[in-house]
Amino acid sequence: GYGRTGIIYYEDPIADKETQVVSRLRMNIDASTETDAGVEFGARFRLQWDQGEEDTHANPGKLWISAQGLTVEIGNVDTAMDSSSLIYATELGAFDRSVGFSAMVGDYYAYAAKSYGGEPDRVGVAVAYSFGDLNLRASVVNYDQTIDGTDKEIGLLAEYTWEDRLELSAAYTKNAEGYDGEDLFFVGARYAVMDNARVGLNYVDADDQSYGKTVALYGDYTLADGLTNIEAYVANNDPSTGVTNVTDTAFGIGVNYDLGGARLGASVQRDYDKLVTADMGVRFNF
Amino acid sequence: GYGRTGIIYYEDPIADKETQVVSRLRMNIDASTETDAGVEFGARFRLQWDQGEEDTHANPGKLWISAQGLTVEIGNVDTAMDSSSLIYATELGAFDRSVGFSAMVGDYYAYAAKSYGGEPDRVGVAVAYSFGDLNLRASVVNYDQTIDGTDKEIGLLAEYTWEDRLELSAAYTKNAEGYDGEDLFFVGARYAVMDNARVGLNYVDADDQSYGKTVALYGDYTLADGLTNIEAYVANNDPSTGVTNVTDTAFGIGVNYDLGGARLGASVQRDYDKLVTADMGVRFNF
Amino acid sequence: GYGRTGIIYYEDPIADKETQVVSRLRMNIDASTETDAGVEFGARFRLQWDQGEEDTHANPGKLWISAQGLTVEIGNVDTAMDSSSLIYATELGAFDRSVGFSAMVGDYYAYAAKSYGGEPDRVGVAVAYSFGDLNLRASVVNYDQTIDGTDKEIGLLAEYTWEDRLELSAAYTKNAEGYDGEDLFFVGARYAVMDNARVGLNYVDADDQSYGKTVALYGDYTLADGLTNIEAYVANNDPSTGVTNVTDTAFGIGVNYDLGGARLGASVQRDYDKLVTADMGVRFNF
Repeated sequence: GYGRTGIIYYEDPIADKETQVVSRLRMNIDASTETDAGVEFGARFRLQWDQGEEDTHANPGKLWISAQGLTVEIGNVDTAMDSSSLIYATELGAFDRSVGFSAMVGDYYAYAAKSYGGEPDRVGVAVAYSFGDLNLRASVVNYDQTIDGTDKEIGLLAEYTWEDRLELSAAYTKNAEGYDGEDLFFVGARYAVMDNARVGLNYVDADDQSYGKTVALYGDYTLADGLTNIEAYVANNDPSTGVTNVTDTAFGIGVNYDLGGARLGASVQRDYDKLVTADMGVRFNF
Repeated sequence: GYGRTGIIYYEDPIADKETQVVSRLRMNIDASTETDAGVEFGARFRLQWDQGEEDTHANPGKLWISAQGLTVEIGNVDTAMDSSSLIYATELGAFDRSVGFSAMVGDYYAYAAKSYGGEPDRVGVAVAYSFGDLNLRASVVNYDQTIDGTDKEIGLLAEYTWEDRLELSAAYTKNAEGYDGEDLFFVGARYAVMDNARVGLNYVDADDQSYGKTVALYGDYTLADGLTNIEAYVANNDPSTGVTNVTDTAFGIGVNYDLGGARLGASVQRDYDKLVTADMGVRFNF
Repeated sequence: GYGRTGIIYYEDPIADKETQVVSRLRMNIDASTETDAGVEFGARFRLQWDQGEEDTHANPGKLWISAQGLTVEIGNVDTAMDSSSLIYATELGAFDRSVGFSAMVGDYYAYAAKSYGGEPDRVGVAVAYSFGDLNLRASVVNYDQTIDGTDKEIGLLAEYTWEDRLELSAAYTKNAEGYDGEDLFFVGARYAVMDNARVGLNYVDADDQSYGKTVALYGDYTLADGLTNIEAYVANNDPSTGVTNVTDTAFGIGVNYDLGGARLGASVQRDYDKLVTADMGVRFNF
């Protein structure tokens, strides 16, 4: 798990307080066992507290079976789109936020960090296959398995890494969150132009959910100290019919400083309402 | 704890869905300490998630003190009847279900796996004594210790094992779940006719709770591979006055295959309504 | 964490039951990591069950950063007054209760053991500094950081230990629990007159919260067996205007017997209503 704390500022002319302390404490509880034949069985659930909550939550469980690169998950599964290694690659700072891209990728099922939120009979099944540099994942989430004819969310993910320099990721979600006809499409690519510099291009079509289509160019650069990483993105949103942006361009720049086991991070970003948000914090893994 | 997942089918002419994915994730959190004089103090609580729930639950705690075979438990205790080593011996498959016998043993307090369910002031005390092949347990559960004159559930259990071949278990519960006059009585015996085959006979009287009286003949047989265990039972229910069974005979057959650390299991059973239920799944301990 | 169980008696002419079983099960979940430069990052949350609750609670998280004697805490912090090493020094027995002093120290924020209780947006920051025998702590708790102009609770604590014999502790709380003008003041001293005997004097002014001003003289003595500790206090309360005590003097005596890893304890006390309370129990750490 990890701990994270710091402050986040949102420009907001009508808000009472634009800057708040924001913390998170997450602990994954993992257990697994391996059979004599080398098949691995495991389970995970998570205890997480976020600023703004009165107590720590324990989420629904995930069970998995894994053998020879093939993993089957049941329950609170990792969905295909949420597992893309690039869909969140534009995120900045210690809080890993991206108002220009991550905020526009649409609404789909992910590993529920806390609760199924009014969907106790939700059930998910995911299959992941890893073969060399190729990663595939398919997921199906049914928001209520006790009734017939529900529109299940179906997700597909394909990823490929070429010589550790080029990363490709494509994901498709059908009937996102169980809404018939709400389909999402993502494709991304990132290339290490130097050992300490990468550039990437992401595209997402969330037009069915009125987020429009968004493309982002992003990159990061590690300074010669090997500890300071500068990251930035610029994103362009083509709004859905009936939606108007104040601006079609959002951008942000961030920095992370590696403390060895922890990192200090900060970012400043501008969203499609031309409002600025900034954050500064620390994150540590354990 | 353990993880368990698979599918369960219930024959049900009016249900929307007869087959569902059913999973459980259970983790026991144990802590104990031993004094210089060899007295052991310990505590347990449990985190458990079951399919159909939005999040993982943490149950009320049990505290225990143990020395020289004598154990005293306070709080969320293991009750006498629930601790019988034979009362659940007819259960089949990876889900350990028995619609013919376990479903007819009546309602009594057990170690609360999740919550006291509307009885915050419940308190239990149990005493267990183990001497060689003899095991004794007595439990008292008061559903509300803040008020006077409650009908406490009192349970007694006696078990004896003879030369590792014959197991005997008898349990008696008075005022089950705190209802005056609702008494339950169980007796069971199981004999290992061969090293890889056992037969057993269970009897329960839950007539006070309208479950009638039920007798079950059961057995299990391990194949020569040493991994495949076949198990079966046939049960006969003598219904309580005013209750009518479609049939007085229920039965089931199951199989478990040992994966070494995990097991695959399946069963098919027919209940007293002549309805069929079947399951197939995997269970692994950690 | 620790486990604790036993019985508590309250003299109460109108109560249905004067004696009840009281148990607690507490488990702290700690995680930390140290950076290359020796800065330590950590987090804690707690799982706790108390008799009278249906299930175990998980409290909001605390995050902390520590280096060279300086610790900064964020979130569910340990407040200054609650961290005094002497404010609870009059407490007796296995349940650590003191009706004469601890019950009169007033209401202030502490590390929330279970939930923020209707204050999800509470946020605390504490700074602690330890230098040799000197300990300092300052804490600020805002009951709702999303609104402007809240009265924050501010706490200060200074402690000094002289040659391991004399302990001094002073704490001040302003706007206790966020109520403007409710200030609390505590000062205490304890001296080891012999290696196995200590005497102390505590004073608290909680007049702003109608608890009046209370002074307590207390001490403890360890018998020659090195295991049995006798403890006692006598306290005098000067009630706030409009409050009448049946008596201005409360007192209590207790005993703890060290089992090595666990302790047996008992106490009997009389409060300012001239009502007697007594307890007997066992507590063990793990």
